[in-house]
Amino acid sequence: MNPMDTAQKISRRTFLSTTAAATAAMALPAWGAGRGSTGVLDPDWKEMGVIATRKSPYAKLHSVPVRAVTVETGFWSARRETNVTASIPSMREELLEHGRMDNFLRLEGKSSAPQRGPVYSDSDIYKWLEAVGFALESSPLPELRAQSGTIIQQVVAAQEPSGYLNTYYVGDRSSQRMQWQVQTTGHELYNIGHLLQGAIAYYRATGDPTLLEAGMRFVDGFLLPGYGPGANQQPIVAGHPEIEMALIELYRTTGNRQYLDLAGYILHGDARKPLTERQIVYMFCGIPFTQRTKLEGHAVRAMYACCGAADYYLETGDPAYWKTLNTLWDDLVAHQLYVTGGVGARSDGEAFGNAYELPNERAYGESCAAIGNMMWNWRMLSASGDAKFTDVMERALYNGINSGMSLSGTMYCYRNPLAFNPATGDKIRNPWYDTTCCPPNLERTFASLPGYFYSTSPEGVYVHFYDNSTLQWKLESGTALTLRQQTKYPWEGTVRIAVEPASAEEFTLFVRIPEWSKQNSVNVNGKEVPGVTAGRYLPLRRRWSSGDSVEIVFDMSPQVVHANPAVADDRGRVALQRGPVVYCMEQLDQKLSASDSADFPRYVARLTETTSSRYEPDLLGGVVTLHHPGALLTAATPALYQESLPSQHAEEETSLQLIPYYAWSNREPSAMQVWIPYQQV
Amino acid sequence: MNPMDTAQKISRRTFLSTTAAATAAMALPAWGAGRGSTGVLDPDWKEMGVIATRKSPYAKLHSVPVRAVTVETGFWSARRETNVTASIPSMREELLEHGRMDNFLRLEGKSSAPQRGPVYSDSDIYKWLEAVGFALESSPLPELRAQSGTIIQQVVAAQEPSGYLNTYYVGDRSSQRMQWQVQTTGHELYNIGHLLQGAIAYYRATGDPTLLEAGMRFVDGFLLPGYGPGANQQPIVAGHPEIEMALIELYRTTGNRQYLDLAGYILHGDARKPLTERQIVYMFCGIPFTQRTKLEGHAVRAMYACCGAADYYLETGDPAYWKTLNTLWDDLVAHQLYVTGGVGARSDGEAFGNAYELPNERAYGESCAAIGNMMWNWRMLSASGDAKFTDVMERALYNGINSGMSLSGTMYCYRNPLAFNPATGDKIRNPWYDTTCCPPNLERTFASLPGYFYSTSPEGVYVHFYDNSTLQWKLESGTALTLRQQTKYPWEGTVRIAVEPASAEEFTLFVRIPEWSKQNSVNVNGKEVPGVTAGRYLPLRRRWSSGDSVEIVFDMSPQVVHANPAVADDRGRVALQRGPVVYCMEQLDQKLSASDSADFPRYVARLTETTSSRYEPDLLGGVVTLHHPGALLTAATPALYQESLPSQHAEEETSLQLIPYYAWSNREPSAMQVWIPYQQV
Repeated sequence: MNPMDTAQKISRRTFLSTTAAATAAMALPAWGAGRGSTGVLDPDWKEMGVIATRKSPYAKLHSVPVRAVTVETGFWSARRETNVTASIPSMREELLEHGRMDNFLRLEGKSSAPQRGPVYSDSDIYKWLEAVGFALESSPLPELRAQSGTIIQQVVAAQEPSGYLNTYYVGDRSSQRMQWQVQTTGHELYNIGHLLQGAIAYYRATGDPTLLEAGMRFVDGFLLPGYGPGANQQPIVAGHPEIEMALIELYRTTGNRQYLDLAGYILHGDARKPLTERQIVYMFCGIPFTQRTKLEGHAVRAMYACCGAADYYLETGDPAYWKTLNTLWDDLVAHQLYVTGGVGARSDGEAFGNAYELPNERAYGESCAAIGNMMWNWRMLSASGDAKFTDVMERALYNGINSGMSLSGTMYCYRNPLAFNPATGDKIRNPWYDTTCCPPNLERTFASLPGYFYSTSPEGVYVHFYDNSTLQWKLESGTALTLRQQTKYPWEGTVRIAVEPASAEEFTLFVRIPEWSKQNSVNVNGKEVPGVTAGRYLPLRRRWSSGDSVEIVFDMSPQVVHANPAVADDRGRVALQRGPVVYCMEQLDQKLSASDSADFPRYVARLTETTSSRYEPDLLGGVVTLHHPGALLTAATPALYQESLPSQHAEEETSLQLIPYYAWSNREPSAMQVWIPYQQV
Repeated sequence: MNPMDTAQKISRRTFLSTTAAATAAMALPAWGAGRGSTGVLDPDWKEMGVIATRKSPYAKLHSVPVRAVTVETGFWSARRETNVTASIPSMREELLEHGRMDNFLRLEGKSSAPQRGPVYSDSDIYKWLEAVGFALESSPLPELRAQSGTIIQQVVAAQEPSGYLNTYYVGDRSSQRMQWQVQTTGHELYNIGHLLQGAIAYYRATGDPTLLEAGMRFVDGFLLPGYGPGANQQPIVAGHPEIEMALIELYRTTGNRQYLDLAGYILHGDARKPLTERQIVYMFCGIPFTQRTKLEGHAVRAMYACCGAADYYLETGDPAYWKTLNTLWDDLVAHQLYVTGGVGARSDGEAFGNAYELPNERAYGESCAAIGNMMWNWRMLSASGDAKFTDVMERALYNGINSGMSLSGTMYCYRNPLAFNPATGDKIRNPWYDTTCCPPNLERTFASLPGYFYSTSPEGVYVHFYDNSTLQWKLESGTALTLRQQTKYPWEGTVRIAVEPASAEEFTLFVRIPEWSKQNSVNVNGKEVPGVTAGRYLPLRRRWSSGDSVEIVFDMSPQVVHANPAVADDRGRVALQRGPVVYCMEQLDQKLSASDSADFPRYVARLTETTSSRYEPDLLGGVVTLHHPGALLTAATPALYQESLPSQHAEEETSLQLIPYYAWSNREPSAMQVWIPYQQV
């Protein structure tokens, strides 16, 4: 059979005429009144950003579409080019080779291969489609467009008339669908959440609603009628949070408040069916989100739950949510955040550890968790306009996320440790993981990156990130606006922004001053602006007209970072950071080689000396390296326990060589450390 | 039916007449020639110690029976009294209450309760019987004798005619017996290993061979015919090492070399059926033991495998085994040993971590692993007479093992962390674990303790441990010997040993000088002996006669211990030790209370000051406490990362109060730490 025939005959009308229709119609916002072939889908798909907060009542900032920002040659361009030429295409091949599409084709009688991959395998296809969707906003990419179109057709063709769509809970396993045990561990809703996110990104890029309508068929036809608070509905739990933010984005895309309400119900937990204490911690769901007091359990689950809760706040303004979100955020930055922006210290359960439990070599720091951290902070920023959230996003983006993909674009980190001993034999970067959540997650993040550069508000425009780029968008007044950034950020500190409104208008340009930049200068049309504060958006309010320009100079001097003494692994150690980039030592760069096979090379940094920096265009795609006076201890004691530590080690003076952390493990295996022991000298 | 009828009708003769008989007869050593009602069982059961090395060709030292040593009022007496009056009786009740005997009775039609507990539940009964066996060497304990006799009858009655005995792989699960998957994870041989150890201890205490004959029926009737290198035998793997040392002890008890050979075959790994790399690491079996180069994987498995391998060396002298055992031991003391003698850093997989991976709060340090460590070192000591092994035994015994049982004797640690934060809500001491391996393991260890005090060799007698006690045994020449120790060790450093041979004879009294005791004096009959060296046995060779005495004075001054800087969690911290006892701080003992809820109280020790000690008879059963000058930091910075650490914290001078680590968590929940941050001052 032709899958398109079947799939499209099950029109949305069928579903709208049953359970969801009445409520959906009631909840329609004004822009949804003209229902066309895409049903209640917002026709202004070209206006919607990474999250479509333009109508969210509690969003202080509003996203701009990914397509509105062109990232030009600079820091991110090579990564983004590699993403669409190497990462996304090779990941498609890996997914096909590992049977992830055969799983769908089998249900259509077009493959005889057995089911392959874990229960969440469908989500990897959906996340890959989301990456393609975002990429298509920046470039037509005809081959990827055609390949993704085929995959969407094959996915949709596997949908059942009920709306149910999942390649694992079929055949003999059909009877397990949405059973409580499967809800907690089977990832059915996680898969559909990723389908919805992928479908929405694809719709916003192309206007093609095919996959999105399939997602709505699942939600309208299967999920809403069967699961929720109603007497005729079964209890529901996220199991792995993800569905919450997906449903809210679907609400933003359709105006159907049922989606928001179901997300809220899931965030609240279904009191009819309590989870065990262990599940509540590990799964970060099943009790009211507003009862949470700390980050714990599976880190990606926690981050995605926080995303959903922040989305819920953006739509409802529920103050209890905002309070809890801020409590959890305070916990994040006070106790749980790696200096790289990674989160989730423990391999065991891929989980948050105790407060200050931030081991380096054993750090888990899953790429997905760092991405979830950035996604959560993006929502917190949207709600508040507070630069402290952008600081965390930038820390994660340039370090713990950026480290997750090799410079070649085809090898990925699942873990992102802050120290590494090659003698363990661990392979940190791999082209494929059977649980391959991280690779397409990294791809969707880099593809969507332009959408994070700016926001608008009724007052004007916020500049969050700096790179050579052009914004072509509009003020909320409707006036077209172009902003052109010229910079060598993060390698150099100067950023020039040409401001070009279509017509002169008074508005505020909010330029972000990162918290790490202590000495700054900002001038507008050559005139110095006073009152620049690190860690704040600097509001430049004036009547802007074409030809105006802003020049910002950030403080790019290398900085020594100390961790709280309660972080056991970092005691007596320092990290080096320059701008937003956190650095590490790879042993292969050092002039002196360590003589033993201990976990870390026996180098110490001198604290009283200063660090020098040098741009090296031919190293690791072009990086600024750091050079810091230090020594190699040449006669460390081998005993595990002893009466006294030698007050002076024998040592040899040297200069420690550091590279950006994100670029580690792109050459031969080598010992690596972010946190370097120091001596006061 | 009367289980005794069935069980005893299946006489050993039946089995000896089939597969095992011919070989067994061939291998019989001289003392086995007189085969009585106990078949080939060594009739000299009263002569055999914790391991019966008296005829082991490669044992340099030979065990003395547990019954030969009477431990009198002193450090260990309260613990040993509690063990037989509270621990062993209450553990019997826990085991019964949790259906561990119903598992057996069900098979005899005497219980309708369903199977309960994990696959290794039978072993908990056997370990409890082993504890009773050892206890019966020191005291008649009629009630325990009767109760254990009943349990043995009930166990034996569940044995099948084939010799098979296991309460889990019965009924529907019978077909899984010894399937490869079950061999790796089902603990069938682990259970039988513990049956054999329990049965041997019981036999050596009482001469009652009932349980031992059941174990031999399993080995002779089921195991030897079916599994091993022969063409008609199936492949075999330990899965959880334990069977190896049990089979070798059975060999020592019977002289049947087939048992030793099968143990050797299991230690070598069955090349016909390779394990995966992960299994080889985690299970510490499946490849030739002599290919191991480091400790890794599940700590208890690794320790028990090392015990079996050391036993194999003691019987065969295979130099490859001795080399590997020493390589692993060097790895232990250089990289893997907690200062408490605990091993196995990771909760994840109950496993060894990387070299120097010794976290404190998250330390696993399972009680069973510390016991396995002591058991392994006992075998290494027996092979070599080298006091470095006794030093590790003493460290484990006084600290990481002794901590495993509450002072009340009815609460047990599974984990033995070196730091604790009560805010986590973790319950460290519990009366019962569904995996209750540790409690009866602790009980058998304390019950067998007298057996570790002394060894003999052709040259004389070794004194390993110090406590008020009397040895009544004999030199290897046959001359009866009494040694009377009088001491307040480990609280005070003086030990007096009265030497009373039945007749004057020249022999060497080897007295152990612990490695921690740097300043020692030893005199014989009032005359100072020169050349006393810490960490060695001091050989006192002379013609001893009744009335001779030795006085030893050890150096009990408190010592500051530094860890290798490669141990991240211990950087900038010290531990305090006095004699063999490692100390810790509990927050409830401190005069100043910490003002925050961080993982550890913010106390620092002054390094240049000296520690004072005080015996407190009413505290924790009577302990020496330590008092060390220090400070409480009152204004620690809350930020996770910062540009510089304050060079001076606001602080309040105080005296830090320390108690022995083994006694922690015997009062209300309180923060605890072994490793204390220090300031040089």
